[in-house]
Amino acid sequence: MRFQSLKGFRDFYPEDMAARRIVFDKILDTVKRYGFREVDAPSVESLDLFRIKSGDEILGQTFNFKDKGDRDITLIPELTPTVARMVVDREKTLRRPIKWYSMPKLWRYEEPQSGRLREFYQLNVDIFGVSGPEADSEVIASGIDIMLSLGLEGEFVFKISDRRLMQGVLEALNVQNAPAIFSAIDKRGKVSHDEFKKMLYDAGMNDIQMGHLISILDTKGPLAEALPKLKPLLARNPLVMEGYENLEKILDLMKMYRMEYYCELDPSIIRGLAYYTGTVFECFDTKGELRAIFGGGRYDKIIGLFGGADMCAVGFGMGDAVLEILMRRANVWPHEKIMTDYYVLTTSPDYREVGIFLAQSLREKDCVVETDMLGRNFSNQMKYANSIGAKKVLILGEKEMAGGKVSIKDMTTGEQETKEIITFLESL
Amino acid sequence: MRFQSLKGFRDFYPEDMAARRIVFDKILDTVKRYGFREVDAPSVESLDLFRIKSGDEILGQTFNFKDKGDRDITLIPELTPTVARMVVDREKTLRRPIKWYSMPKLWRYEEPQSGRLREFYQLNVDIFGVSGPEADSEVIASGIDIMLSLGLEGEFVFKISDRRLMQGVLEALNVQNAPAIFSAIDKRGKVSHDEFKKMLYDAGMNDIQMGHLISILDTKGPLAEALPKLKPLLARNPLVMEGYENLEKILDLMKMYRMEYYCELDPSIIRGLAYYTGTVFECFDTKGELRAIFGGGRYDKIIGLFGGADMCAVGFGMGDAVLEILMRRANVWPHEKIMTDYYVLTTSPDYREVGIFLAQSLREKDCVVETDMLGRNFSNQMKYANSIGAKKVLILGEKEMAGGKVSIKDMTTGEQETKEIITFLESL
Repeated sequence: MRFQSLKGFRDFYPEDMAARRIVFDKILDTVKRYGFREVDAPSVESLDLFRIKSGDEILGQTFNFKDKGDRDITLIPELTPTVARMVVDREKTLRRPIKWYSMPKLWRYEEPQSGRLREFYQLNVDIFGVSGPEADSEVIASGIDIMLSLGLEGEFVFKISDRRLMQGVLEALNVQNAPAIFSAIDKRGKVSHDEFKKMLYDAGMNDIQMGHLISILDTKGPLAEALPKLKPLLARNPLVMEGYENLEKILDLMKMYRMEYYCELDPSIIRGLAYYTGTVFECFDTKGELRAIFGGGRYDKIIGLFGGADMCAVGFGMGDAVLEILMRRANVWPHEKIMTDYYVLTTSPDYREVGIFLAQSLREKDCVVETDMLGRNFSNQMKYANSIGAKKVLILGEKEMAGGKVSIKDMTTGEQETKEIITFLESL
Repeated sequence: MRFQSLKGFRDFYPEDMAARRIVFDKILDTVKRYGFREVDAPSVESLDLFRIKSGDEILGQTFNFKDKGDRDITLIPELTPTVARMVVDREKTLRRPIKWYSMPKLWRYEEPQSGRLREFYQLNVDIFGVSGPEADSEVIASGIDIMLSLGLEGEFVFKISDRRLMQGVLEALNVQNAPAIFSAIDKRGKVSHDEFKKMLYDAGMNDIQMGHLISILDTKGPLAEALPKLKPLLARNPLVMEGYENLEKILDLMKMYRMEYYCELDPSIIRGLAYYTGTVFECFDTKGELRAIFGGGRYDKIIGLFGGADMCAVGFGMGDAVLEILMRRANVWPHEKIMTDYYVLTTSPDYREVGIFLAQSLREKDCVVETDMLGRNFSNQMKYANSIGAKKVLILGEKEMAGGKVSIKDMTTGEQETKEIITFLESL
C-alpha cells in the first residue's frame, strides 16, 4: 500500500525547499528592517475565537473538530484572532506601537485550485496602537518593499481605497440594500457590464444612482492622478470626507516613501465590511490574471471585539501560493540546486579517520561537508559530489595519504592541487 | 469575553521568539553543516499513515478527526511516516544517501506536564540508504554537535545500545515473555530495585536469569570502557554478536569524530521494539533529572512498511520542550532583548518626509529602523528608542533641519555628533 498526501497539501523536497527558504528569508528580512518583531502562536485554537470575528460562516471553511476533551477546536484559518488574543492578554504591558509579524501555516477547507490550497503559509504584519495614516503607509510600504525585494518591480500594483468612501457614497445615494451592492461590486470583475447592471438593479438601484456609482467605480488608476479626479464626483457627507482625506494623507506619505508609483486608487476594493474600518488595500499582478497576492487594511475594532480596551490596528496577510505563481510567471522564482562546500573523497575505509577529521575541521569553520558513507569507488564518489553541488572535493587517495597530503579539486574550474593536510587546514 | 490559548499550547511574544530563533538557527546551522537538506511536509495527514507504524494505540494520543469530506485525518504526531511516504514517492529518483532534516510542529494529545506539551517543535534528522554504522555515527555526531553548539558541554550524555543486543540476551536466557521484560526494563529507573525484580519475576524470570540480566543492565558507563566489560557477560548467539559488533564499530567511529567522550553504553535503552532494528540511543541531561532530550536509532524496515523497496534508515527526533528546560537550567538559554539599529526621532510632523527618507535609505542598507508614528515629544521618543534597544538615534530637530543636518546619538556611549545629512548617508 502506498500513501499520498491529502488534496491541497504540499510536500517540499530539498530543491523546492531551498528555493522556498530563499524567498521566505527575503520576505522576513524586509519586514524586519521596518522594525516588525516576530511572534509565534498555536496552530490550534478554540473555535469560538474565530466565531467572534467571522461568525458561523467561517465554520464551513475550517478544519474544525472536537478534541478528546470534547472541546470545539480548529486549525487556524487566519492569524488575526490569535494575534488579537495575544495583544489583549498583555495590553497593559506591551509598549506601543506594537509591530508584529509572523509567517505561520494556515488551513482552510476550500476546494483546492490554482493559488488556493488547504494548507499554506501566510505572512502576517500588524501595527497596533496607531490611529494615524502613518501606520497604514508603513504597512503598505513594507508590503511594496517585499514585492521589490523579490524582483517583482513592474509586476504588481497596490489597489487602495477606504472602506468609508464607498459606504458614504451609498449613504449619499440613499441606497437601501448596501450589502447586496457591495456584493455586486465585489463580483464586477468576473461578470459582464450588463450582468453587473442587472445586479445593481436587482439590489434596488435606479439608472441615475447606477450611473453615479459606476462613474465613481471607474475613477481608478495611479493614486496621485485618480484621487483629484474622484473629488468632484463625491458627495460631502462625513463618511465620504473621512475616507477621502485619509486617502489623501496616505498618498502624501507614500510619496515620502518614494513608493506612490506602486499605488492605485480603486474604489471597488471593499474587503470584509464588518471588519475593516478605514484604509483597505489589495496587491494584484499588473496583468490582472491572478487572485489578490495579498490584502489588508485598518481594523480598529478588533481589540475591543476580543475583550480588550479599544486599540487601533492596521495590517495585512500575504499567502505563499499566489505569490509563487506570480514569481514563476515573472521568472524570478529561484532555481536552487543543493550546494555543498566540500565533499571528502576517500578511496579506502582506512582513510576514513582522516576524512572525518577533515570534515569535522571544516564543519567547525561553518562549511557544509559530506563524506562517503557507502564505500563507493572514486568515480561514483565524484558523481555524487557533482550531484550535491560540491564546490570542492578533497581527495584522500593512496598517494596523498602516503605523504600526509590532500588533493583539493575545484569543481568549478576543474583545477586540482595537492597540499600537506596541516597546510590546508591552516589556510582555512 | 477574553480568550485563552488551549492547554499545552504556547504563545511566543517577541522577546521569547527572538531567543527561540537564535536557538533554532544554531540547531539548523549545525545539521546543515553535516550535509542534511531541509524538507517540509503537511501538518495534516491521513490517519492510516500513522496506523501503519504505530498501530491503533497511536489514536489515543493524536489530534485526529474526520474532515468535511469524511476522511480520517490527523495532525501529525511525528514526522517519520510522512518522510517515509515522501521517500517512497520518489524512491526511483532520489540520490543516495538521502540526508534530510526538518523542524516541524507536532501535536500529541497527552496530559501536558514539564517538558511535554500538546504542540511542540521537533527537529527530525534522517539518513536513508546506508546500511553501515557510518550513518549511525554521522547522525549521532550531528546530535552531539547540536548540543555542543548550544553551549551544553558537560550537561548531556548520549546513551547508546543496540536493540539486537538485549533481544539476543533474552533469547539466550530462554525467556518466554520478552515484551513484559522489555517493559520492566523500560520502567527500571522509575521503580525500586525490589519492584523491578518483582516485575521480572512476574514476567516469568527465575533468580539466575534475573541475576544475569541485571549484571548486563548494570554494565553501563563510558562506551569505550563499558563495551569491553560487557563482552564476557554476553552469550554468543547471532543477535547478540550483531548488536555487539555494531556497537564496537560505532565506538570506533565516534572516536574518529573525537566525540566518544559524550557516548555511554546503556543496555537498558530499548525504545520501540516493533520499529528499531539496530542502534538505539537517547540523549539525557547528565544529572538524570529530565526526560530524554532526544532519541533515535536505526529502523531499516520503515520504507518497506510504507510500500517502498527495502531501504536502510537511521535518524533521530529532538523536541524543543525538554531542550529548553535543560538550557535554562544550564543558564545558556539566550536572554534576548529587541534590537534596533536606528530610531529616527522627528520633533515635528514637518520633518517626517526627511525622517522617512533617512529610514528608507538605512533599510536599503539592511538596517532595522523605526520612526515615530505617534507624534510623541522628544523625551517620549527617546524612551521608546531605549525600549526597542536602538543602537543609534538619528535626531531631526529644528536646529538640525535648518542646516540640512542630522544628529546621531550613540545610545551605548551617549555620544552625539551632528553631520550634514548627505555626509551621513555617504558614510554608511
